[in-house]
Amino acid sequence: MPTLAPCQGVTLVDDLARVEAELRSVGHDAGSVLHEAIHHHLSTGGKRLRPRLALLAGRVAGGDVSPELVRFATITELVHAASLVHDDTLDDSPTRRGVETVRSRYGNHLAVLVGDYLFAQAAILTASLGSLRLMALLAETIQSLVQGELAQLSAAYRIEASAENYESRIAAKSASLFVFAAEGGAVQAGAVEEQARALRNYAHYLGLAFQIADDVLDYTASADELGKPAGSDLANGVVTLPALYYLERVPPDAVERRLIEEGGDMTRVIAAIRASDGPARALARARALAAAAADALCAFPPSPERDALHDLAAVTTGRRS
Amino acid sequence: MPTLAPCQGVTLVDDLARVEAELRSVGHDAGSVLHEAIHHHLSTGGKRLRPRLALLAGRVAGGDVSPELVRFATITELVHAASLVHDDTLDDSPTRRGVETVRSRYGNHLAVLVGDYLFAQAAILTASLGSLRLMALLAETIQSLVQGELAQLSAAYRIEASAENYESRIAAKSASLFVFAAEGGAVQAGAVEEQARALRNYAHYLGLAFQIADDVLDYTASADELGKPAGSDLANGVVTLPALYYLERVPPDAVERRLIEEGGDMTRVIAAIRASDGPARALARARALAAAAADALCAFPPSPERDALHDLAAVTTGRRS
Repeated sequence: MPTLAPCQGVTLVDDLARVEAELRSVGHDAGSVLHEAIHHHLSTGGKRLRPRLALLAGRVAGGDVSPELVRFATITELVHAASLVHDDTLDDSPTRRGVETVRSRYGNHLAVLVGDYLFAQAAILTASLGSLRLMALLAETIQSLVQGELAQLSAAYRIEASAENYESRIAAKSASLFVFAAEGGAVQAGAVEEQARALRNYAHYLGLAFQIADDVLDYTASADELGKPAGSDLANGVVTLPALYYLERVPPDAVERRLIEEGGDMTRVIAAIRASDGPARALARARALAAAAADALCAFPPSPERDALHDLAAVTTGRRS
Repeated sequence: MPTLAPCQGVTLVDDLARVEAELRSVGHDAGSVLHEAIHHHLSTGGKRLRPRLALLAGRVAGGDVSPELVRFATITELVHAASLVHDDTLDDSPTRRGVETVRSRYGNHLAVLVGDYLFAQAAILTASLGSLRLMALLAETIQSLVQGELAQLSAAYRIEASAENYESRIAAKSASLFVFAAEGGAVQAGAVEEQARALRNYAHYLGLAFQIADDVLDYTASADELGKPAGSDLANGVVTLPALYYLERVPPDAVERRLIEEGGDMTRVIAAIRASDGPARALARARALAAAAADALCAFPPSPERDALHDLAAVTTGRRS
């Protein structure tokens, strides 16, 4: 994943600490096995990017960070966690962020239940915020995540997908949760409709840029940096933008096409993609999308929070660290 | 499952037809594979017991069946379906109601997504009803279903559980959805708090009675009647009330205890339970609970709907058909 520097001029340290405290209290009534499995997952870290986004969106649109905004930020991480745990049941990777997945450690059965529990917990916390709009937004987001994952399953080991197909798939599977965090944070903070819409647009482009940059790293980073084997997307049949760009320039009868479709050992294909201009072209696309995200911020007057959101877009695609 | 006769004096035929129409429209935007898998499950039938309960609760508490009450009744079936599809990923039964399960036909991966989709669809439809209380009720119900399923997993192949443990497990795993249907139907119909509470109590006892009767049938019915192999609960390690009552009267050193804990071929143990008084004692418990359900209806003045709810409790435990 791309590294993220702290946002200049704005510190989220205290707010994120409150999010962590809320996360630690999740599942205390869930029974010991479920509780352990939930915290095995939550403690593997991650950058809490979605809570950051929710907090910044609320601050840029409203001002103060209320306990309700902290709660909403916590919810975004729970939805993300639920989605990852269920995705892992669809995936053969034994590790995520360098740590055993819930599926690998506790089995598929418990992973299904942990994901269901976390989705339901997110819904309960959202209900406690008393906003039907946030509830509807949550429900639509979960629906979108499922459809994105399904689109990815349907496209597995298929080489004929277009870059547009790929982007609509990652919009559903990844950007939707960024949109949930940013629009929801704005709504929770009492943003006017125009601001909520601007943050929605920002988050959509940011989410696309983030996912493409992540998919590029799967080809360009080492296994140590990734916390999982490099090239594992393709090994799982997931044909991402670097691979699609690579395939555009490979002859129709190339053996690499057949190797992907057959789903066997991908070592040779992964090496070919790494050596091609596919990753660099994909990164350029991510940067164009990050620029579109930054543009959406013009709806706001200058502020340290706006700068922080601007930086987030730049950092996501590796322009600064 | 126990057979259910139409409720005397009250016809739900038209209302249930509207529920079926709403169910048929689920997933039309979900893509072909997901749509097919959803309707493979929904078309396996079932008695639509939870929608019936929601409709009757609304009618006994409020009067007319509004489009919103029909929608809520539909939601109860979606939650039930989502829960069953996820349960099937935890279970090795190839069939349910005599038809292949989603897991068995489409694989574990799609079954996880179908369940997530249906939970999210239930949440979206609930959000459209505009009631935060119903949203909170839905979220708590899903949480309860997960914890019940987890309790069942934890208790698998264990013979020391008490009848009380068993009842608290089925309260979470089964009765919670009956409570959701009845209390939610009442809330949707504008019931006063006392009526909503009475229906909640009714549904709690009805749900327990229903699940025990179902667990008894797993020992007393034929595979044809069940649509799955008889004794399949124990074969999956699920030690239900007939087995617990049987174990109470078996010597501490009996070989049957070891056979259950080892989880091998259960044929011999199943035969011993069938020949014991365990099933009959469990059915007596179910009938006592059904009577408690009927008692809770005294909060309502006499009406055809109250009679229908009364009948439902009797029918559930096989007193009439």
